[in-house]
Amino acid sequence: MLPPSDIPTVRLLPKAEARAIRHGFPWVYSNELVLDRRTKALEPGTLALLEDAERRPMGIVGFNPASKIAARMLETNLELPIDAAWFEAKFARALAHRSLLYPDPFYRLVHAESDGLPGVVIDRFGDIAVIQPNAAWSERLLEPMVEALVRVTGVTTVIKNASGRSRALEGLDDVTQVLRGEMPAAPVPVPMNGATYLADVGGGQKTGLFYDQRPNHAFAATLAKGARVLDVFSHVGGFSLAALAAGAESAVAVDGSTPALELARGGAEATGVSDRLTLRSGDAFDQLAALQGEGAQFEVVVCDPPAFAPNRQSLEAGLRAYERIARLAAPLVAPDGYLVLCSCSHAADLSRFRAASARGIGKGGRRGQLIHTGFAGPDHPQLPQLAESGYLKALFFRL
Amino acid sequence: MLPPSDIPTVRLLPKAEARAIRHGFPWVYSNELVLDRRTKALEPGTLALLEDAERRPMGIVGFNPASKIAARMLETNLELPIDAAWFEAKFARALAHRSLLYPDPFYRLVHAESDGLPGVVIDRFGDIAVIQPNAAWSERLLEPMVEALVRVTGVTTVIKNASGRSRALEGLDDVTQVLRGEMPAAPVPVPMNGATYLADVGGGQKTGLFYDQRPNHAFAATLAKGARVLDVFSHVGGFSLAALAAGAESAVAVDGSTPALELARGGAEATGVSDRLTLRSGDAFDQLAALQGEGAQFEVVVCDPPAFAPNRQSLEAGLRAYERIARLAAPLVAPDGYLVLCSCSHAADLSRFRAASARGIGKGGRRGQLIHTGFAGPDHPQLPQLAESGYLKALFFRL
Repeated sequence: MLPPSDIPTVRLLPKAEARAIRHGFPWVYSNELVLDRRTKALEPGTLALLEDAERRPMGIVGFNPASKIAARMLETNLELPIDAAWFEAKFARALAHRSLLYPDPFYRLVHAESDGLPGVVIDRFGDIAVIQPNAAWSERLLEPMVEALVRVTGVTTVIKNASGRSRALEGLDDVTQVLRGEMPAAPVPVPMNGATYLADVGGGQKTGLFYDQRPNHAFAATLAKGARVLDVFSHVGGFSLAALAAGAESAVAVDGSTPALELARGGAEATGVSDRLTLRSGDAFDQLAALQGEGAQFEVVVCDPPAFAPNRQSLEAGLRAYERIARLAAPLVAPDGYLVLCSCSHAADLSRFRAASARGIGKGGRRGQLIHTGFAGPDHPQLPQLAESGYLKALFFRL
Repeated sequence: MLPPSDIPTVRLLPKAEARAIRHGFPWVYSNELVLDRRTKALEPGTLALLEDAERRPMGIVGFNPASKIAARMLETNLELPIDAAWFEAKFARALAHRSLLYPDPFYRLVHAESDGLPGVVIDRFGDIAVIQPNAAWSERLLEPMVEALVRVTGVTTVIKNASGRSRALEGLDDVTQVLRGEMPAAPVPVPMNGATYLADVGGGQKTGLFYDQRPNHAFAATLAKGARVLDVFSHVGGFSLAALAAGAESAVAVDGSTPALELARGGAEATGVSDRLTLRSGDAFDQLAALQGEGAQFEVVVCDPPAFAPNRQSLEAGLRAYERIARLAAPLVAPDGYLVLCSCSHAADLSRFRAASARGIGKGGRRGQLIHTGFAGPDHPQLPQLAESGYLKALFFRL
């Protein structure tokens, strides 16, 4: 769009971590930039040339004076304009990786910073793409980005999902829109791990579909042959449907959201396993206690709660909640059965989450071997420079 | 064998970590025990009753006054004698887990502490079991243990491999023996990930077979369809053969051991892919430099070196070696190709190894996304209480 000569300049303060940025760290915090009146007056999402404190150019950033992450690195090659061809190259590179990994076009196509498009998340459901432009620069360049997306992938429907919490931090609206094609009239069937899931792609509700757990669904399914499975915080049936498709004897899906459970039911029908799926609606902690009261036992128990420790402030309380989940779930696992405990909390790192889980299992009167540790699938790449981009952990215990 | 009343007692010092042991930590260090003349005179491998400092019984341990790990917890239930039935129960439990995971009987059957048999490692190759009794107690009880092993698994050949370095720390010999059946006349074919590997099950040489990398071989193979693959520190061709079986265009296996490369060649023939495998014998660092000189490029490069940081003393030097490997390997990766970096060093934890790898990639002039982190397979369970039992890390980068 804009060759470097036409765009404004923002400059690092001498104290800023220029070295980290040169080594691939993609963010500049607002307290690392010279924020004079001119800079503060720039429109959120303006493309700018980032200079170090000695005025040496570092790259083109998406700038937002309203955000704590004031600048996001887009391109260190100053010869490359941020135009349709630039977007096409990013999408082509992201697509090549996913096409190699997955036989069907159902995956996270773009995972933000790690795929070179800071703040932009795109999930693909066949001919439908759901885009989350969660940084101001991407909202400003939405039209050429969507053009390039359609050209590279051939999707016919593009939905803008504006429900991401980070949009508010960027000063962006929360209006979900159909940008190309039409909103699908019914939930979209998604083939994954031998099952068919239903995704409510327009839903601002907690009723979309999470691709990140795909390899953990698959690994749990290998443990579930002939098993009774309990899937707590089941959402649309991620673990249950994969387990049933792999030959589980039965599955009980527990979730607080009735719409999510309805999608789980629909997915079970589409997979041809609905006779083996039981739905239990309600608070997960209550349901775990109730199942213990009933003397229920399962060969595989999975707990995949929402983020209990989304930030540092909530870390201690979050770890206690993870421990409590483990303590309530462990007694429901049959002897020599498996307990799968998941966390999608940034703040609770792997060793802390593992320690909390082991403590909970102990307090639940059991001992465990840790047989496997899984993370988000390979369509959710991480930037090594950005530890924050690794959030999902799944611990597989045998009790 | 011995009911608690007949066996000697060893006692914790007041400063010892009784709480950790009660929570499942399986080791008592020699400086945590009352080591009087009577205790020091006990035969290495004696079963003993462990008491806490207040003389409350804690469990039956395998005791060795010659080892830094003076006691290893075998059983906290004092009613259970350590006899043939006890071993059978351990093997049955270990076998149930592996039978669920693997269609063919080729796996690590017992992974020491995590499988309730401290210091004992057993790898299974069909009808053959290779046992490493690396703690003195297991050497003393070898005969009833092997009896139980044969009864539970039906293996017909049992080989004792005494080459483990930890045997010296326990004061044990290094004499490898055939305990049941006969030493196979030829390398044993092992089906894994669609390939056939050859395992030299009697080899004190570095020519056995490592099951721990199985899931990482499998994941690398999914990336290798149509790719040129470079497999550095290939050993018997772990990554190469899986990649070729999955449709890689070609593979180059580099190793310093000619016997290992010969087994790789034999495995390639058994898999029917020998026309696509090239062997290069020699020092890995030299070979990486030579390949760069030749201008070679590969879509998938794997480096799976021996432990560069086996202990704390070697940590810094080890991390530099991992960084150097990454630096030399990165330029050989074709654009948008994959670089797989492995570490089997206890001392280099995941975040340190990841940082060293990312530094090396940067110094090699490249940037990477981290698309997957793999560990040892689920036939290598970890004890959550014993961080040391998790050693293998495999980082999958896309450059």
